[in-house]
Amino acid sequence: MGTLTELFAPERVAVVGATAREGSIGRAVTDNLLSAYEGTIIPVNPNYDEVLGLSCVDDIGAADADMAVIVVPPKIALPAVEQAGEAGVTNVVVITAGFGETGGDGASREKELKKIAAEYDMKLVGPNSLGIMSTANGMNASFGPDSPKEGNMSFMSQSGAFITAVLDWANDEDVGFKDVASLGNKAVLDETDFVDHWGDDEDTDVIIGYLEGISQGREFIDTAREVTQDTPIVLVKSGRTDAGAQAASSHTGTIAGSEQAYEAGLDQAGVLRAESVQDLFDAAQMLANQPVPENNDVAVITNAGGPGVMSTDAVGDSGLEMATFNQETLNEFSEQLPPEGNIYNPVDIVGDADVDRFRDALDIALADDNVGSAMVLSCPTAVLDYEQLAKETVEMREKHGKPVAACFMGGESVDESAEILSDAGIPNYFDPSRAIGALDSLWEYRGIQRREYEPPADFDVDQEAAREILERVESREDNRLGVEAMGLLEAYGIPMPDSDIVDSPEDALEVAKRIEGDVVMKIVSPDILHKSDIGGVKVGVSDDEVEDAYEDLITRARNYQPDANLLGVQLQEMADLDSGTETIVGMNRDPQFGPLMMFGLGGIFVEILEDTTFRVAPVSESEAREMTEEIKTAPLLRGARGRDPADVDGIVETIQRLSQLVADFPAIMEFDINPLVATPDGVDAVDIRLTVDPKKL
Amino acid sequence: MGTLTELFAPERVAVVGATAREGSIGRAVTDNLLSAYEGTIIPVNPNYDEVLGLSCVDDIGAADADMAVIVVPPKIALPAVEQAGEAGVTNVVVITAGFGETGGDGASREKELKKIAAEYDMKLVGPNSLGIMSTANGMNASFGPDSPKEGNMSFMSQSGAFITAVLDWANDEDVGFKDVASLGNKAVLDETDFVDHWGDDEDTDVIIGYLEGISQGREFIDTAREVTQDTPIVLVKSGRTDAGAQAASSHTGTIAGSEQAYEAGLDQAGVLRAESVQDLFDAAQMLANQPVPENNDVAVITNAGGPGVMSTDAVGDSGLEMATFNQETLNEFSEQLPPEGNIYNPVDIVGDADVDRFRDALDIALADDNVGSAMVLSCPTAVLDYEQLAKETVEMREKHGKPVAACFMGGESVDESAEILSDAGIPNYFDPSRAIGALDSLWEYRGIQRREYEPPADFDVDQEAAREILERVESREDNRLGVEAMGLLEAYGIPMPDSDIVDSPEDALEVAKRIEGDVVMKIVSPDILHKSDIGGVKVGVSDDEVEDAYEDLITRARNYQPDANLLGVQLQEMADLDSGTETIVGMNRDPQFGPLMMFGLGGIFVEILEDTTFRVAPVSESEAREMTEEIKTAPLLRGARGRDPADVDGIVETIQRLSQLVADFPAIMEFDINPLVATPDGVDAVDIRLTVDPKKL
Repeated sequence: MGTLTELFAPERVAVVGATAREGSIGRAVTDNLLSAYEGTIIPVNPNYDEVLGLSCVDDIGAADADMAVIVVPPKIALPAVEQAGEAGVTNVVVITAGFGETGGDGASREKELKKIAAEYDMKLVGPNSLGIMSTANGMNASFGPDSPKEGNMSFMSQSGAFITAVLDWANDEDVGFKDVASLGNKAVLDETDFVDHWGDDEDTDVIIGYLEGISQGREFIDTAREVTQDTPIVLVKSGRTDAGAQAASSHTGTIAGSEQAYEAGLDQAGVLRAESVQDLFDAAQMLANQPVPENNDVAVITNAGGPGVMSTDAVGDSGLEMATFNQETLNEFSEQLPPEGNIYNPVDIVGDADVDRFRDALDIALADDNVGSAMVLSCPTAVLDYEQLAKETVEMREKHGKPVAACFMGGESVDESAEILSDAGIPNYFDPSRAIGALDSLWEYRGIQRREYEPPADFDVDQEAAREILERVESREDNRLGVEAMGLLEAYGIPMPDSDIVDSPEDALEVAKRIEGDVVMKIVSPDILHKSDIGGVKVGVSDDEVEDAYEDLITRARNYQPDANLLGVQLQEMADLDSGTETIVGMNRDPQFGPLMMFGLGGIFVEILEDTTFRVAPVSESEAREMTEEIKTAPLLRGARGRDPADVDGIVETIQRLSQLVADFPAIMEFDINPLVATPDGVDAVDIRLTVDPKKL
Repeated sequence: MGTLTELFAPERVAVVGATAREGSIGRAVTDNLLSAYEGTIIPVNPNYDEVLGLSCVDDIGAADADMAVIVVPPKIALPAVEQAGEAGVTNVVVITAGFGETGGDGASREKELKKIAAEYDMKLVGPNSLGIMSTANGMNASFGPDSPKEGNMSFMSQSGAFITAVLDWANDEDVGFKDVASLGNKAVLDETDFVDHWGDDEDTDVIIGYLEGISQGREFIDTAREVTQDTPIVLVKSGRTDAGAQAASSHTGTIAGSEQAYEAGLDQAGVLRAESVQDLFDAAQMLANQPVPENNDVAVITNAGGPGVMSTDAVGDSGLEMATFNQETLNEFSEQLPPEGNIYNPVDIVGDADVDRFRDALDIALADDNVGSAMVLSCPTAVLDYEQLAKETVEMREKHGKPVAACFMGGESVDESAEILSDAGIPNYFDPSRAIGALDSLWEYRGIQRREYEPPADFDVDQEAAREILERVESREDNRLGVEAMGLLEAYGIPMPDSDIVDSPEDALEVAKRIEGDVVMKIVSPDILHKSDIGGVKVGVSDDEVEDAYEDLITRARNYQPDANLLGVQLQEMADLDSGTETIVGMNRDPQFGPLMMFGLGGIFVEILEDTTFRVAPVSESEAREMTEEIKTAPLLRGARGRDPADVDGIVETIQRLSQLVADFPAIMEFDINPLVATPDGVDAVDIRLTVDPKKL
């Protein structure tokens, strides 16, 4: 029983604004409900006594409804919703448009709507929604032209038009749904609520959706990763590209989070992300109908060598691998197949193969423990009865309980067999790469099911000390802090070279003596950004040069900008750059997902090769570790080409500790540790930069 | 008139091995010819007087044929072909299998076949071919179950089964062909011959194909790049992935060239490479029916915001861009569209749009010079007549002469409109990304048409000097040469640091004095590969250390391997590594494409990040320059992040000169200049390694 059960399975639905007027939305919704809804429909409209044969009430208070669909004009929509609340109807679908999507008045109207919904604790869909549907009770509470067929997928979409297009197509292809929801402007209920509900819905086996944005990123991640343990979620999230993000923003006013945040967030949520409509349904139909494979090794049984090679390429492009058969299987193939066949994978059972040879080969392959899934790949021949082959394929799929994809190539001659396959949940494709792609999504989902999520570590830190340092930004004009805030690292246990900020040559000498060896000296001033350019950084300063260096740095700063806010000079132990690797641990705050952690190797690797990786914070230890493993330059950290291996554990802990810091302080908008130098023996945060929003402190 | 005109348009076809026996290949071929062939069919079979109502001759000499199809058993196939030759029939299609593809006897049979074909100067298809077809004269000289419909694409395939699958599908989809050829084992005619022929064939507007290998890479490149100026070529070349390459090799015994060579070679040839069957036909149908766009800016006209955003993502993934309309267009849209519409691209004409609004919007967009192509993207609505919209779309496409793609989303309700579109050469897709992908191939082809191929430079070099150095390998056991062959660079004008090889401490001192500054000293021995590991390289040696250093190097070499072939010690000017960038210019010899040039930045960039680029040699100046531009690390060469820019012209010339060297000497199997140090002032080849096949000298 999901949290939105009453919304999708009401017993009495009120249509506020129902009318018999041709071409009106009120008519369309009433017609759609009349078509198959098993419950009671109550038109609400003071202008009529009856609508389309249903007796009509003047106001929703008289309807005794448990769900209301609002189709009245925008100007009277708010009172209509309020009246529903007063009447105790808390499940509301607002089809009426003219809210946030129009800006101006509409936007204020949407704010009001939220208030009303909150007051009555409403489960409210929309506004600007096409409506919702459920095949469990035949309810089509929408103004779309089609009703869905029954099925085990539930479908949400931020575009109502896309729902109409999909249903038109799906009804033709015999693709069915449990529930369908047009999210509209998501004033109250959003994708997270529907995912949460369908995750508990026994009749929903796969959740699919089209989204242009995710309203509350972290909540979505936390909800989705629980749901995906049992119910796969496949989404098209558009606005992947810069052009797309701009178009999404102008379409629904979606505030674009960064694509990096979506990529990281959807992955952390365990969502399978489809890049196109075709991918979405290829994956969803496979997940809705077939078991997940136990391993990623696929067997291809074919009567045609060429397409067999193509399918092998498709496997190479995917997360699957060509299965290596065990000896018993090879022996059986040797006995079964003609000498010109190929007993290795792809198994070429030769052009003169009849259905029996196909079935036996499939049977042999699926019996092999090394085989996780199989594809039947056939070209039409005179000796092959496609219908019979379809039946045997279905039987073998059921006998072995392993997923099977079909690629019966051809046109009209495939139609009947494709239907037999499709009825048994085996989609058929003309293109081997689509069939392999569909199998691959099963394997990808297997990986998600196997994930173990661990909570982020909770390090013992000094929040108060950190707060004091952050508050210094209140006296600044530009909200930025630099090395003068290194104390933040200390408070959160992030290692750094011995360093100190001084404001006299004498103090400088004292600190230099304390730090063993030569030091780095740097001007500390929020007003001087590019210190190196004015000679404001001195490297390898020995003790007897320290006092002169101090004077020189101060002079340079004064000459460059007489009124600069000069906080002193930093002295720092020299980092061991010879045996160390420069890395960057960074963070920025995404409008939808919150703090987003970044990791990469410093310099050209980040700036030119863009070899970086992202996670939504807070990150767990294993997520932080993945970050150090998935960049292309990861081998450099592990000691490739005779380098010293870096202290990866130290990097992992630094990522976690910075993640905790930025989660603790929503005022931190950006934070870069650059470089974090990683030697074999540890890590050192050499320089930092952060931006703080004082209003959020 | 192509070179294979007689093969595809014979007037009299002999079927050697024709028979009426049900289920035989001889019967199938005769039946197929009887179905629509406009010429004369002459069965050749000493056992019959007539076959299927045709009078049969005993031997081909009596047939007076201009083309022969051979379907006799393998053991009598060779005499049959020989007799054809004696009878003056030089166009021969060998359907008979049991040649190279079976190995052993079959392989020797194929060798014999080649000899006979050469003797009679035959245009021979196969063996092991499904046959050939031409819709121009209704000739189906194959044993496949289907005949193609008429069309303007010609199709070759290394897999006969794939042809049967494609024809079955294409007949259902109304996709037609001019000629179809099953290449079989390609004993004589191969893909280059067919590309050459169809390039001259007026009735072929697009050449498509499925290949597992290319027999003669360089010839293919040279032929294809001429053909693609007028006729696009779209190919699936399978064996892209390691797994696929292995499968291809076991399927047709194709000797796998490297994927790098295919990628480079097909690109240099101007071939559009499809990664899947779907991509192949999406691209081919667009190219066969629509004009190429003048620019890459696409306008999307839609009645549905969500799918509009999806299409924008698809554009972002492609080589196309979303068009920016000019002011006049924006003004017209402002007048035409309702206020809730979007006049910017994607143009949202809103859900209540009828056909008139769609047509007018498309008309406005296509009239804009900034728009190179357009997509009509629609979701089904009550007010939209899809059939009428299809007709208007066709009209606008023709009116403006610009390419238009269609994405009428939906199922059954689209069927009739899709047919109207398809008849006018506008394919319709459910998925916006496929429609955009098809438009993108038009734009990609436009780029190929605009290419200007220049001949490789012909530098003045000293071939004789180079040959002498290469011949030294004859006294070696392992066919490898190193710095002792630096003279090759001198002979081919590739700059290197001042260096010399000496065999006494005195000579060492003399050379060191000649070279200004400190020197690098290195053991020279083909038997000692990892010189650094035994201390066999000394950097920064000053004149007064040179003699001791010489003795020490010799001692180390002797201690390490007393019987090593010790050629002396190399002294070399120190390369300016501070202002220089290490690059690698390399070459290896691909079995199908010949010498393949490689370029990349040295060290981790090649070894870990695999940031390399390839071209089939000989390379022209512009090809060499592209190599320096298309690696990801190219900005480092141009002076990113405050580095000195490298002498890119010097690199470009070095690539060309090495390309000339390896083209001049087929004996050079591998050649690496590593590093080639590029400073702002020039390049220096610091170290080389090569492998030479003395048998080819």
